[in-house]
Amino acid sequence: MRVPPVKLYGYFRSSATYRVRIALNLKGIPWEQELVDLRAPKQAQHSAEFRALNPQGLIPVLVDGDHVLSQSLAILEYLEDTHPQPALLPRDPFARAQVRALALHIACDIHPLNNLRVLNYLRAPLGQDDAALNAWYAHWVGLGFAALEQQVQRLSADRQHMYGNLLTLADVCIVPQMYNAQRFNVDVSPYPTLRGICAHLESLPAFARAAPHLQPDAG
Amino acid sequence: MRVPPVKLYGYFRSSATYRVRIALNLKGIPWEQELVDLRAPKQAQHSAEFRALNPQGLIPVLVDGDHVLSQSLAILEYLEDTHPQPALLPRDPFARAQVRALALHIACDIHPLNNLRVLNYLRAPLGQDDAALNAWYAHWVGLGFAALEQQVQRLSADRQHMYGNLLTLADVCIVPQMYNAQRFNVDVSPYPTLRGICAHLESLPAFARAAPHLQPDAG
Repeated sequence: MRVPPVKLYGYFRSSATYRVRIALNLKGIPWEQELVDLRAPKQAQHSAEFRALNPQGLIPVLVDGDHVLSQSLAILEYLEDTHPQPALLPRDPFARAQVRALALHIACDIHPLNNLRVLNYLRAPLGQDDAALNAWYAHWVGLGFAALEQQVQRLSADRQHMYGNLLTLADVCIVPQMYNAQRFNVDVSPYPTLRGICAHLESLPAFARAAPHLQPDAG
Repeated sequence: MRVPPVKLYGYFRSSATYRVRIALNLKGIPWEQELVDLRAPKQAQHSAEFRALNPQGLIPVLVDGDHVLSQSLAILEYLEDTHPQPALLPRDPFARAQVRALALHIACDIHPLNNLRVLNYLRAPLGQDDAALNAWYAHWVGLGFAALEQQVQRLSADRQHMYGNLLTLADVCIVPQMYNAQRFNVDVSPYPTLRGICAHLESLPAFARAAPHLQPDAG
């Protein structure tokens, strides 16, 4: 019996979806995209059909048979638990926690502040203009990347991976965040270690195939 | 040889620190608080001494012997890995992921938007007044709690726990977020299931002892 591939509800530019694409590719799990077009006037994330999958109205959502999962980091941990090889978390509890802390730094303290819904709220009702939105975006990425740069200077062993010389969930999270920062024209020159790590990772097939511009809905 | 207790760098009102206090208490791990006073003019999170522990300048930080860890959810997973009993994650991979998704919903999509540093940025440079800050706070808590309320109506089996009839990391995260919402005078009456769950959890000794007003730095 053929097992149907997992379905990933997402959008090419969503960096949280991009994380999951990378992990699915790294683990060699067959998957299909279900497009959730975030753009106005479509805003498919607010449709009744999508909210039945995720009451939060946020992507990504992974559907694996009867299992419906939201929150990209919970999805990554699920893939790690169900498809342990290749491992994206080290075995040692402290090392695992350090990798998770790097991933959470990005997923909690950088990305959610710069999400579409937040930028929309700044525009209305708060009445902020494009310049203020760009400054807001750059502020939180800058704070986060400055701290991450210090952390990886200590934690990266080869300047090709965020942690040691291992491919981990921290790598899965940094590449989409760097992509997003560059899309918003943030100056990333002060973060040479992060940039070098991302340049290496983007050359790997699993990362390269997950790039936003290669997705079927890109355009 | 006496094992020195773990040190938790935090502040009584920090809801991310509150999460870790609850988990340490639930697992019966002896711990001591190291005060990081976030209030102006002290702002101890920005001191060179504290930034040597966490370049992000955010609490909590857990110090366990030579191990220094930031990011509250990474700390919770570390405690789960190093002190498996009582378990705060179910065994089944999908169930684990659902619990993590609830915890991440709070930790990524509600709390970071309403953190002190974000409210400060809204005040200056964005020039927003108290009314705008309160509306911002209530907006993100409201969005998050409305979705969580729907989720737990489906996932909570006993209306005393977020997931099934189990005490999990989702419970560890909701109580501090509910405390925080009430401190900011958010109307939580539309979320009866969440309120009932929190009322039960707050009656448990491990949660009760972790309450902000009982911490040595409260005042």
